[in-house]
Amino acid sequence: MFSFAVTNKSGENAARCGIMQTPHGPVETPVFMPVGTRGTVKGILPSQLQEAGAQMILANTYHLLLRPGPEVVEQLGGLHGFMGWKGPILTDSGGFQVFSLSSLCRLGEDEVEFASHIDGAKVKLGPKSATQTQNRLGADIIMAFDECVSLPCPKEKMAQAVERTLRWAEQSLAAHERPQSQWMFGIVQGGTDLELREYCTKKLIELDFPGYAIGGLSVGETHEKMLETTSFTASLLPEEKPRYLMGVGTPRDLVAAMAAGVDMFDCVLPTRNGRHGTAFTHDGKLKLRNEQYKLQTGPLDKQCNCYTCRNFSRGYLRHLFMMENSNPEMLGPILVSLHNLTFYQSLMQQGRRAIRENRFETWAQDWLNYDANKNTD
Amino acid sequence: MFSFAVTNKSGENAARCGIMQTPHGPVETPVFMPVGTRGTVKGILPSQLQEAGAQMILANTYHLLLRPGPEVVEQLGGLHGFMGWKGPILTDSGGFQVFSLSSLCRLGEDEVEFASHIDGAKVKLGPKSATQTQNRLGADIIMAFDECVSLPCPKEKMAQAVERTLRWAEQSLAAHERPQSQWMFGIVQGGTDLELREYCTKKLIELDFPGYAIGGLSVGETHEKMLETTSFTASLLPEEKPRYLMGVGTPRDLVAAMAAGVDMFDCVLPTRNGRHGTAFTHDGKLKLRNEQYKLQTGPLDKQCNCYTCRNFSRGYLRHLFMMENSNPEMLGPILVSLHNLTFYQSLMQQGRRAIRENRFETWAQDWLNYDANKNTD
Repeated sequence: MFSFAVTNKSGENAARCGIMQTPHGPVETPVFMPVGTRGTVKGILPSQLQEAGAQMILANTYHLLLRPGPEVVEQLGGLHGFMGWKGPILTDSGGFQVFSLSSLCRLGEDEVEFASHIDGAKVKLGPKSATQTQNRLGADIIMAFDECVSLPCPKEKMAQAVERTLRWAEQSLAAHERPQSQWMFGIVQGGTDLELREYCTKKLIELDFPGYAIGGLSVGETHEKMLETTSFTASLLPEEKPRYLMGVGTPRDLVAAMAAGVDMFDCVLPTRNGRHGTAFTHDGKLKLRNEQYKLQTGPLDKQCNCYTCRNFSRGYLRHLFMMENSNPEMLGPILVSLHNLTFYQSLMQQGRRAIRENRFETWAQDWLNYDANKNTD
Repeated sequence: MFSFAVTNKSGENAARCGIMQTPHGPVETPVFMPVGTRGTVKGILPSQLQEAGAQMILANTYHLLLRPGPEVVEQLGGLHGFMGWKGPILTDSGGFQVFSLSSLCRLGEDEVEFASHIDGAKVKLGPKSATQTQNRLGADIIMAFDECVSLPCPKEKMAQAVERTLRWAEQSLAAHERPQSQWMFGIVQGGTDLELREYCTKKLIELDFPGYAIGGLSVGETHEKMLETTSFTASLLPEEKPRYLMGVGTPRDLVAAMAAGVDMFDCVLPTRNGRHGTAFTHDGKLKLRNEQYKLQTGPLDKQCNCYTCRNFSRGYLRHLFMMENSNPEMLGPILVSLHNLTFYQSLMQQGRRAIRENRFETWAQDWLNYDANKNTD
């Protein structure tokens, strides 16, 4: 039911294209997964995700565990039926959110106790329960439970987190009840310490996961450190298995990490920026609240063919955000999120094509300077 | 460019079907217009409005006057280009909002001065400026500026409001600069006082507007009073011209007013209820936050074929509303608004068909008891 095959390798760098088969259809890699935290990509219908070119999406175990609970999702058809998304889904294990969103109460050897960010209720999560929860949610790809520490972090503490992550990886695999219908990926931790990354990678490879994620990045380190760690780790991972860089990132991050041989990405940036009126365009980032867009009749991005760019002017989109109490009209966040998601998917399509046509480095050049661009006029 | 023709008359009551031609296409009446207050039906794309069966929509002059201003809308392509809606549009004159939303500063003979509800800025609006504003917004149908008083109201004050409304109707007509491309309707006022309604109607008919609205209802009076006033007024209006009941109402209101010979409606109920998690269904109103829907796998309404009902369970929709801080996931309001708009359009389609097939009374029976229905299970 599952497979992954590299179909094209760049002659210039480590970039590659591939096809991943899942029970809910094939995925062309490198792939960007929009984030549907609570079982919904904020403000976007499944049909619109599809139209934007999304192949696979992500949902968060932590949020769905707290509300509505895995038993509710299961009874309402599993994640696919629940959220009306027929394509492949990946769930994270909740590790990242437990360590970043909630108040940690107790970090034990077998599990973590935390206070829910919703109502303060004490909840326990560990490799066994995180895996069982993901088994019930029913995503195509699920993740081993890991300890994610914020950076910077003393080496000794990071080494402990790596050991715990390795122990939990083994326990997650052992608890996994549906290996035929759900692939479980292991997560490499180790911060920006290459020695720890190497150690963690080698130990995880011994566990023979069908795919590997690089976790614990995009948590405050520089783009350069993120990239160095990603490139180094990706180079150690098995050639024939998919590599997933978690929670990254900006267009520049994605292009640089594709060059390092990463196959899968997820990030909230296109939707979060969209909700706040910031659009990604081929000319740079565009902040719609700026006065300069008030009377502009052109689309957000001349190179884009999304519903938003086909139908609405910058001036109208700005109007939707210029409301009292900074509470935009709902259509503003919807339309800009839709555009940004399309922009990200188009970036990935361009990247895949550039890899296949062996011109990735040339194509990537513009994007590596992208974030430094001045805003579009 | 404009015309209105009654195509079918009920043999049972005053209900009728018609076709209204506008510069942006034909409209089958009776028609329900979704409300796009600030140049957007909240959370709904124009393509979704079309899919829901909407033929014509309404936008509010008061809101667009304050922000972004008629000159901005005009420069961004007029209302049609601005909001990406290719079908017919109607704008109200702002009268209702001036008297209900803003703090009234001065009610003069020629205009009203009020404090904007956004920032308190003093703004003047009168028959001339309301008409000029609507000329610049560019809707297919525009409304004469009227004085709308809240009920109950002493007869003497109501009589003064009627006189002012009549004077303003004449001034609105005189100020109208684009009668070839925009139809202007007059508005009958007079509260629930039938004598005043009759007087106002007759005087307005002398001004020979191409269509007439019944205003000043759904402002606190009972369903029975609303209906009595509507039936009485509609019976006095010219047979060959469209009749528009402003701001009404519930499914029951609509069905009863169709029977009285009303051709056009608008109301925020489907979208406002949708945003708050209340769905209209053929079995009654459904409040999604109720615990009973938590595990229900069926659609909101088995008789509905909208995107929401085709793709999502009641349990999932409930989940979208059960978020911390009562702040639903955006998809909840979107999906329930979409359903409610489809429900309203389906109600109108059913009504038109029942009129054509001369079985309106039978069809209407269920709907006249609709609001009293217990919630669906």
